[in-house]
Amino acid sequence: MVKINLKEKLSKFTDHWSPRIIAEMNDYQFKLVKIKGDFVWHNHDDTDEVFIVLEGEMKIEFKNETVELKEGEMFVVPKGVEHKPYAEKECKVMLIEPKGVVNTGDAGSNLTAPNDVWI
Amino acid sequence: MVKINLKEKLSKFTDHWSPRIIAEMNDYQFKLVKIKGDFVWHNHDDTDEVFIVLEGEMKIEFKNETVELKEGEMFVVPKGVEHKPYAEKECKVMLIEPKGVVNTGDAGSNLTAPNDVWI
Repeated sequence: MVKINLKEKLSKFTDHWSPRIIAEMNDYQFKLVKIKGDFVWHNHDDTDEVFIVLEGEMKIEFKNETVELKEGEMFVVPKGVEHKPYAEKECKVMLIEPKGVVNTGDAGSNLTAPNDVWI
Repeated sequence: MVKINLKEKLSKFTDHWSPRIIAEMNDYQFKLVKIKGDFVWHNHDDTDEVFIVLEGEMKIEFKNETVELKEGEMFVVPKGVEHKPYAEKECKVMLIEPKGVVNTGDAGSNLTAPNDVWI
């Protein structure tokens, strides 16, 4: 029963592509992540994934199009759809997805981050 | 595969206490709602419910405490916990909860709104 301040939570880490859990709702989790540069192509076989841009700009590349997201914009990546997040400058993002989702999905990578780190 | 701009969606309605669906992730929904004044005491027996304040300030009253939320703050109301949202001035909020949740939960009220209106 504690409120969560997004900016205060964002101030607690500086690394990129390593989501931190800030809240749980049933079996879903809210995570914050700072992204910069290219991620890896991947998909999540079992679940949709929501991106909400809190600060900055990012792109999500798909095989046939690229979506550009700015602060205050959100996007639902459907399950099973290959995508590659990208940000030219650092971008701060909230992710919502089921507990246990790995950031790189089906793609093993040195960008695979722990999926159980709370802040 | 369409991005969602929260401010643009918020500009599409003016009434209070009537959530609009803006996105679906698996069997969960993202809703926008404008609130002002007192809501009713209620709980949701089967699910947690997330509030994220997008603009303004609100309170969530519980039987033993009151939580104040400002822009950029979120709160998870645990399932089964009696609560009453309140806003002195209009406050714009994003709700995340499973598809089918009714805004007044277990409490019948003239504030009960349709739970299937997309914008």
